[in-house]
Amino acid sequence: MHWAKILGAVVGAAALLGLGIILGHFAIPKATDPSAPGTSDSQDLDLEVLNLVMEQLDASRIRENLRELSQEPHVASSPQDEALVHLLLERWQDTATGLDSAKTYEYNVLLSFPNEEQPNVVEVVGQDGTVFHSFQPQEKNLTGEQEPKVLQPYAAYAPAGTPQGLLVYANQGSEEDFKELEARGIKLEGTIALTRYGGVGRGAKAINAAKHGVVGVLVYTDPGDINDGKSLPSETFPNSWGLPPSGVERGSYYEYFGDPLTPYLPAHPSSFRLDINNISGIPPIPAQPIGFEDARDLLCNLTGPPATASWKGALGCDYNLGPGFKQDGSFPAGSEVKMRVHNRLELKNSSNVLGIIQGAVEPDRYVIYGNHRDSWVDGAVDPSTGTAVLLEITRVLGTLLKKGTWRPRRSIIFASWGAEEFGLIGSTEFTEEFLSKLQERTVAYINVDISVFANATLRAQGTPPVQSVIFSATKEISAPGRSGLSIYDNWIRYTNRSSTVYGLVPSLGTLGAGSDYASFIHFLGISSMDLAYTYDRSKTSARIYPTYHTAFDTFDYVVKFLDPDFSSHQAVGRTAGSVLLRLSDSLFLPLNVSDYSETLHSFLRAAQTDLGTLLEQHNISLDPLVTAVKEFETAAAALVRRISALQSSSPEVTDMPSSPLQVRMVNDQLMLLERAFLNPRAFPEKPYYSHVLWAPNTASAATFPGLANACARAQEANSGSEAWAEVQRQLSIVVTALEGAAATLKPVEDL
Amino acid sequence: MHWAKILGAVVGAAALLGLGIILGHFAIPKATDPSAPGTSDSQDLDLEVLNLVMEQLDASRIRENLRELSQEPHVASSPQDEALVHLLLERWQDTATGLDSAKTYEYNVLLSFPNEEQPNVVEVVGQDGTVFHSFQPQEKNLTGEQEPKVLQPYAAYAPAGTPQGLLVYANQGSEEDFKELEARGIKLEGTIALTRYGGVGRGAKAINAAKHGVVGVLVYTDPGDINDGKSLPSETFPNSWGLPPSGVERGSYYEYFGDPLTPYLPAHPSSFRLDINNISGIPPIPAQPIGFEDARDLLCNLTGPPATASWKGALGCDYNLGPGFKQDGSFPAGSEVKMRVHNRLELKNSSNVLGIIQGAVEPDRYVIYGNHRDSWVDGAVDPSTGTAVLLEITRVLGTLLKKGTWRPRRSIIFASWGAEEFGLIGSTEFTEEFLSKLQERTVAYINVDISVFANATLRAQGTPPVQSVIFSATKEISAPGRSGLSIYDNWIRYTNRSSTVYGLVPSLGTLGAGSDYASFIHFLGISSMDLAYTYDRSKTSARIYPTYHTAFDTFDYVVKFLDPDFSSHQAVGRTAGSVLLRLSDSLFLPLNVSDYSETLHSFLRAAQTDLGTLLEQHNISLDPLVTAVKEFETAAAALVRRISALQSSSPEVTDMPSSPLQVRMVNDQLMLLERAFLNPRAFPEKPYYSHVLWAPNTASAATFPGLANACARAQEANSGSEAWAEVQRQLSIVVTALEGAAATLKPVEDL
Repeated sequence: MHWAKILGAVVGAAALLGLGIILGHFAIPKATDPSAPGTSDSQDLDLEVLNLVMEQLDASRIRENLRELSQEPHVASSPQDEALVHLLLERWQDTATGLDSAKTYEYNVLLSFPNEEQPNVVEVVGQDGTVFHSFQPQEKNLTGEQEPKVLQPYAAYAPAGTPQGLLVYANQGSEEDFKELEARGIKLEGTIALTRYGGVGRGAKAINAAKHGVVGVLVYTDPGDINDGKSLPSETFPNSWGLPPSGVERGSYYEYFGDPLTPYLPAHPSSFRLDINNISGIPPIPAQPIGFEDARDLLCNLTGPPATASWKGALGCDYNLGPGFKQDGSFPAGSEVKMRVHNRLELKNSSNVLGIIQGAVEPDRYVIYGNHRDSWVDGAVDPSTGTAVLLEITRVLGTLLKKGTWRPRRSIIFASWGAEEFGLIGSTEFTEEFLSKLQERTVAYINVDISVFANATLRAQGTPPVQSVIFSATKEISAPGRSGLSIYDNWIRYTNRSSTVYGLVPSLGTLGAGSDYASFIHFLGISSMDLAYTYDRSKTSARIYPTYHTAFDTFDYVVKFLDPDFSSHQAVGRTAGSVLLRLSDSLFLPLNVSDYSETLHSFLRAAQTDLGTLLEQHNISLDPLVTAVKEFETAAAALVRRISALQSSSPEVTDMPSSPLQVRMVNDQLMLLERAFLNPRAFPEKPYYSHVLWAPNTASAATFPGLANACARAQEANSGSEAWAEVQRQLSIVVTALEGAAATLKPVEDL
Repeated sequence: MHWAKILGAVVGAAALLGLGIILGHFAIPKATDPSAPGTSDSQDLDLEVLNLVMEQLDASRIRENLRELSQEPHVASSPQDEALVHLLLERWQDTATGLDSAKTYEYNVLLSFPNEEQPNVVEVVGQDGTVFHSFQPQEKNLTGEQEPKVLQPYAAYAPAGTPQGLLVYANQGSEEDFKELEARGIKLEGTIALTRYGGVGRGAKAINAAKHGVVGVLVYTDPGDINDGKSLPSETFPNSWGLPPSGVERGSYYEYFGDPLTPYLPAHPSSFRLDINNISGIPPIPAQPIGFEDARDLLCNLTGPPATASWKGALGCDYNLGPGFKQDGSFPAGSEVKMRVHNRLELKNSSNVLGIIQGAVEPDRYVIYGNHRDSWVDGAVDPSTGTAVLLEITRVLGTLLKKGTWRPRRSIIFASWGAEEFGLIGSTEFTEEFLSKLQERTVAYINVDISVFANATLRAQGTPPVQSVIFSATKEISAPGRSGLSIYDNWIRYTNRSSTVYGLVPSLGTLGAGSDYASFIHFLGISSMDLAYTYDRSKTSARIYPTYHTAFDTFDYVVKFLDPDFSSHQAVGRTAGSVLLRLSDSLFLPLNVSDYSETLHSFLRAAQTDLGTLLEQHNISLDPLVTAVKEFETAAAALVRRISALQSSSPEVTDMPSSPLQVRMVNDQLMLLERAFLNPRAFPEKPYYSHVLWAPNTASAATFPGLANACARAQEANSGSEAWAEVQRQLSIVVTALEGAAATLKPVEDL
């Protein structure tokens, strides 16, 4: 009866044809005019547009972008970084190829730099102070590209200081490593520890060391970890992609993320800042990275017992533990290592550049695509391979936009983040500033940092709901090279798993905190992904591409060794572009929430297999978890069925399409699922980590991280202890999150 | 161009008339069939339905509901409480007058009860143990209604124990009161403190007392606070509405809310529970409430210096401070007070009953209307006046629903909460269980606990966005009595303020944590309100209605003294019903976010006036706050203008209506504004309080609570101290929240 009233009011005495025309007026989109969004509520992904975008993404333009982006070192907040801010603004504000708008967002953040007037020094000194050896202050200029402008290698956020002591070798500097040294009778008090990159975070090496009385930490890159053992100049860059002997990995030694002084608050000039002495997660003692040429001089001259096999790298000598140098070596016995670290903390302005394409139908739904801009060095690979692709994607989409050919259904936000290298600072401040609206409106976050590590295969990391859209996109795009395979079919040859649902599929990696997706997934609970082209792991075991964070990460390096024809760049651009368009333009969001069920089952199985007996001994039942996983699975499957039913009544196939609000309602369920896994009180000791499924799992069981970590800690404790109470608390947190997630997916009109 | 493609796909070669018919098919609502929601996307509030509901809300049926609900005492989890669960289910599942569905949700929660075999005892004993006086274990049976079934007065959650000591009088038991006693040289160690209700929370009296060495606490109701000074049997119930001398206020002495053992987790049987010794917010020492007849025997016999004027009540004698009794009084000097408290903690099942009317268009948007069901006593007033109204509203709406006359645009959830009296437990567990989906989907929460305190005027508490809908509703409803005024015009005569925007308007109160709205507003950030009819404050200063939580809170009491013709009940029913329908049925949500600007300006002015000088002395500028308030105001005003523009293109007035998605998008902004004020890290010491504007303000400045409290604590501290860092942190938290709120209100396609 009710509709008749409304109808009456609308059409008055008009005839049925008039009604048709009026309603036509209502339902037919007027144009893709941004000032009149929402006029075509059923706008869906246009495959012609998608194909056009795929075709227009141009390898040679990506190459040219890369050249421009990597001309100079551009560490965060430097004039060169600022110059790139302007480059981005110019591109995104271009009237023919730009976006609807672009703007900078500046934050005042705590960075750490070496002192240009007083470079950091590492020396071997005799007991009388005689200097026997002074280490290379900078990489060698091998190709003319390693200009002096590049920052001296340093450990950002490591404090200044001039520690001196006998040297010990501490492997990767993990807590276990230092414990083993003590167990083997090596006195650590007052020593300088030489460690190699890998295993634990950079800052963790110094934090762990300090707990054992170590006064300074050196960190080097072992050729066994980075060069597949090769270490001669003839075997390394510029003669191969290998790290030259003088190459030094710079990096942030801050263990958390976001501006260290303003946790959970945007770093505006007026924001509350911690006292500098209250920052957590930074080294309490001086630290300095060195190259393996210098490291060899130290390590191969150590006295003391030999290291066990797993501690040994490829320096081609004994790895003794110290303390101090051996009798017959290069230095007089009793010589010590002296570090002079002059790093300075500075409050600096760092900008994010954000560009927007406003959505035509649902401008309040955001797909965010970002990469950082800052680099320790020229940064051709890190991050400019990503930014070069980003700029090509915005050029192609911007052109379609400005021509009036296309406007996405949802809004797209492009981001060039600042100060990522120091600790994901720009992206984290962004999520802190716009917390509430980003959580409510963001469909997904796409991160493309280093877009090309190598030429072999796609590598994708993400949460389960993004698997399906990445699969759909990659099945339609050709892999680089002459295989004739799709990116998908090529990928599955390198990295695959047996899915209980789909059979053999490419294997999606999980998201840690290695790039700017961290605050999106862990803090805001937004479905996120990271895309790149990468290695054939049967051909190299390199920890990362060898010139990572060194002065040899140059344009030439990319052109010669990584992607000469930029076809891998293009492949990543097409993949990211296709995923982006599918997310921004599809009527129904291409997020398959049912794919979480497989993850949950695998976590559950691991809990049962690896922890079941232990839990039983302490009278803790996994039954509620079993029930919660089933409940989630049932709700997800039912929602997927409901969406299929709605899709089969979409305008292409029926004259009874789903209403715009019906579509919006299921899309909201899909978009908001990931939020249901957040619990800001789950991990009070881990800043920003709120996602109960993806917080760091430092235990051996591949299950729910809170449960795994709590069990590992409780293992030796008595039932009834606080450690076991924490296990039960973590179990309840997961069960509650799964039930909440299931509730999000159930029919919305029920509780 | 794009629309043409879609169009092509939809209609193929069909003629324009065909298009009209097809689109007509698409846009014309089919019916109000719940299985086909969303078929009339423009469905708006129907004034005929609203008027029908107003007419059908029947005072005599409310009276009959109340009689049924208050026949017996029904403390949470008792068989009588369970019987009411069934009564509610029966009503809400009725095929002719019920809702779409109704269900119970059970939680396993920690309650506290007196021991029936071993009643609590308070005595005056001589030094040799002789009992000189034993206090009334129970209210006197004055009308035959005060059955023995009613629970003995007790202080829920106060621990068992048998403390004995000299008596002191400690006024309201605030921290300041105990400090003043010590300042006046009264030795508190080992004493029993007699306190009166009011000032601070029940539990706080015992928590404060214990800090000063007090071993037991008695709490009484002073006739000056509850009876306007009257205390004779002839002046009190059943001869007037006054509290009889034997009346004792029961209550929870738990200072927080939610199940004490499962903070932030739903209290399911398998949920993690704290060790009982780790509960916070409960009295560390025994406590017991007593009536003023008994209190007079104690207080009027105390020795020691006289209390200051503000500490004196209306017992008609000196209020001496003690310790101990005077020489020439009723008890031998040296006599002590001995308490025997045998309260027991018990894990019990308590149920919420939830009933749903599914929305026709936006079933994923919820308007929640609730009240608790449990009572310490018969509970005619508290809470049955509210539940009687609730049941009448569901009967009227259920009837329209079952007849097919009406189905709301959005879903309506009716709730009968369990165990509110123990600490808002049922509602809090509900918000913990459905956290994520409630936050994402709930438009507003309406609470009607005690619906009638008295007959004079409406009293409404709520956050600013609900002001407008309450005003709209009350302007259209007649006030009870013969004034001929609307509820609004009557209300403004009793409680008003001068609004900078509207001139003189009724004054909305703020929401504390006095009823089940607490977790909705403070924990989830959902716009909430509490509605009731209440006193003429010029005629009584009673702290609350006199028989509150006593055995005299009976059906007879309501009929004789509170609302003989149930017209005030009807007025509240109409107000709540009209507000509910406006929220559930209006095309545009009737939440005026601009009304927050006035509050923010008033908070800002108070900060400037009351704290400005102090802050300046410590180099803290309020400028960022000034800017943030302006930014909010501008964004809110712009959104209100935009909504007006959209409304003027609504189907009644134009053939170019706003699209369903355009309406949904602005409604989402309105709905989610309140969420932007949440910060779960703002008040770590105050469980569940996350709303940075409405957390408890215990300081004197009527401004942002975090700022006010931090300033009060820092007042005596040095600049640079942690206390001043906390002031700056709180200031940044407010500024960030306001900026986030402004960002939510700004055009959605921008950042």
